[in-house]
Amino acid sequence: MPSISNKGNSMPQSPIRKLVPYAENAKKNGVKVYHLNIGQPDIKTPQVALDAVKNNDIEVLSYARSEGSEVYRNKLANYYANNNIHVSANDIVVTTGGSEALLFTIGSITDPGDEIIIPEPFYANYNGFSIASGVKVVPVISSIDSNFALPKIEDFEKLITANTKAILICNPGNPTGYLYSKEEIEKLKQIVLKHDLFLIADEVYREFVYDGATHNSVMKVDGLEQNAIMIDSVSKRYSMCGARIGCIVSKNQYFIKTAIKFAQARLSPPTYALLASEAALDTPQSYFDNVTKEYVERRNTLISELKKIDGVKVAEPKGAFYCVAELPVENTDDFAQWILEKFNYNNETVMVAPASGFYSTPGEGKNQVRIAYVLNKEDLIKSVTILKHALAAYNQ
Amino acid sequence: MPSISNKGNSMPQSPIRKLVPYAENAKKNGVKVYHLNIGQPDIKTPQVALDAVKNNDIEVLSYARSEGSEVYRNKLANYYANNNIHVSANDIVVTTGGSEALLFTIGSITDPGDEIIIPEPFYANYNGFSIASGVKVVPVISSIDSNFALPKIEDFEKLITANTKAILICNPGNPTGYLYSKEEIEKLKQIVLKHDLFLIADEVYREFVYDGATHNSVMKVDGLEQNAIMIDSVSKRYSMCGARIGCIVSKNQYFIKTAIKFAQARLSPPTYALLASEAALDTPQSYFDNVTKEYVERRNTLISELKKIDGVKVAEPKGAFYCVAELPVENTDDFAQWILEKFNYNNETVMVAPASGFYSTPGEGKNQVRIAYVLNKEDLIKSVTILKHALAAYNQ
Repeated sequence: MPSISNKGNSMPQSPIRKLVPYAENAKKNGVKVYHLNIGQPDIKTPQVALDAVKNNDIEVLSYARSEGSEVYRNKLANYYANNNIHVSANDIVVTTGGSEALLFTIGSITDPGDEIIIPEPFYANYNGFSIASGVKVVPVISSIDSNFALPKIEDFEKLITANTKAILICNPGNPTGYLYSKEEIEKLKQIVLKHDLFLIADEVYREFVYDGATHNSVMKVDGLEQNAIMIDSVSKRYSMCGARIGCIVSKNQYFIKTAIKFAQARLSPPTYALLASEAALDTPQSYFDNVTKEYVERRNTLISELKKIDGVKVAEPKGAFYCVAELPVENTDDFAQWILEKFNYNNETVMVAPASGFYSTPGEGKNQVRIAYVLNKEDLIKSVTILKHALAAYNQ
Repeated sequence: MPSISNKGNSMPQSPIRKLVPYAENAKKNGVKVYHLNIGQPDIKTPQVALDAVKNNDIEVLSYARSEGSEVYRNKLANYYANNNIHVSANDIVVTTGGSEALLFTIGSITDPGDEIIIPEPFYANYNGFSIASGVKVVPVISSIDSNFALPKIEDFEKLITANTKAILICNPGNPTGYLYSKEEIEKLKQIVLKHDLFLIADEVYREFVYDGATHNSVMKVDGLEQNAIMIDSVSKRYSMCGARIGCIVSKNQYFIKTAIKFAQARLSPPTYALLASEAALDTPQSYFDNVTKEYVERRNTLISELKKIDGVKVAEPKGAFYCVAELPVENTDDFAQWILEKFNYNNETVMVAPASGFYSTPGEGKNQVRIAYVLNKEDLIKSVTILKHALAAYNQ
């Protein structure tokens, strides 16, 4: 039999995926499962986006332009201007989700054996995209005790080698909910300029910033124009995860031209989803105000309920819709499986994401979980109650 | 300034893309351009697919299952059964177009430095996907004089090294229109079994087979189960190029499990397009009968018109909707630009694809073009008339 590649063998399977059969089994046994494990919001997609697709008059479902139409990229530039990010259509490449934006970016700036430094815990699929490109992820550990703030610059410097091509951050962070300050972005600027690196910022949660805080985009920093690459997506902003439309934004024209060659090879982003994404740009501000209000209430509910449980430590998220919590157990992979396989409370249980999948340093985050507050408050309270009883039973 | 990767620098830009500004300029100057250069059919998408999207009742545009829903994969298996290809839902991974199917396949079976043998001329983007994965394309030349039939098995054997992982064919062929015979597929079977290689067959033009010929899928060959990988897509079959839905099909379960890990990293195929693709499976046979009739007429018209031009040699396509023609010029890159930039006939001109983009051996195919018969007969006749006058003027 012909053999699979080392790359294929190294592709990680996330701990969440391993839990899916246990969740399915629980449901088969009549147990209701609250999903705190995924970033799939229950928020309604803006009507204007849904209507654009329902009312489409397409007769031949043709390819779209590889890098996105000029009309859509101009509208995107206008949306960014409203967020104090000043770019033109030529600085934007439309992609099939933020996933493809990361793949094209990594492909454009790295060769096999190159390295990208990422503060951990980080979004698990950064591993997959890196492995697919033959690139090594070099983690720099951030701590729950500082809410996962940016690690010290010395910690980054120690890791930089001749093979380092970029630093990648997620802001606000998945899974941490951490929001980088202006000073932290400034520190990253100094280090990438000093070492001639790219600074890739995954900013797909830009709108999910709470408590009156400001989002500090890498695209707003003077002097960083040739180094900054922004990854974006409509998935979270408009609750359109299934659209699969994202984009790459950068002022570095040589990088953008290279990314477009990757885009041309795959021909086109999905045409129906482009209709929805273009229309979504007309979503009224009231939609975002309501969504933000809802998420702040959910976050406050979740955090205050979690704090009531003995032995649970929670980071205070300032953005996105996740938090990382430390549980009084040794191994959350085992616990997350147990709670689905062996436990229920009034015929209900919860699925959480073991944090091991968000670390690449072996052994890190073993007692942590990521909790997504993508359920309504009532369900969140029920979920934490189940978690509390489960922890008590597990530690008996 | 941080540097772009060697990979990014090597990503090819197709000769067609280089011509686009000249075509746009011609249009600005009031010249009508007939597009014989692209595989974007003018055929209407099946109504049942269009309606499924128009009548959708999605309120939250959620992620779809990474490898495609079980319902859709079961329906696909049923469609394949009707084509005498017997597979189950577990043998299928749904992808974002045939493009992603190729990327996941190459990623699953090759590491940087590995080699894939491809009969040339071949679909230009095989180069892009290979470079993106750090893989070397090893071309084996097929000839216009034999209609681009399979090269001799000895020619393949000479090219096989310890790094060879697969042979990739396109059947029916883009750009050649060639349809591999049962005997040719059998020869490929012997060589991949002997050398423990994968045989990847891009069969996206399965329905476009003319003159009563049979399509010989690699999935129908006994004994090839662990080696055969089929690439498929809804793009051409249902004139749904903009959907971006394809799939990988293989009986090799370890390969399929690996490909699913790539699929999980990018989360989901596009949800709206999945609605269209699932509904498209109910397209009535009459649709395909009409499409085939139309393409046969177009092909016959195109070939007979081309043959009337002195010095033009045409391969006889048996499938897909392309043909490769040899023109009485030295360099079709120059000629294709000239006909857009400097020529018009009654204020009309044509855009053709120089064949250099379909070869990876330098200098091969320099006097060939690919012509896509995706226009109606009247326009095809006009286009060939323009071509005839252009050749006369160019060679004066």
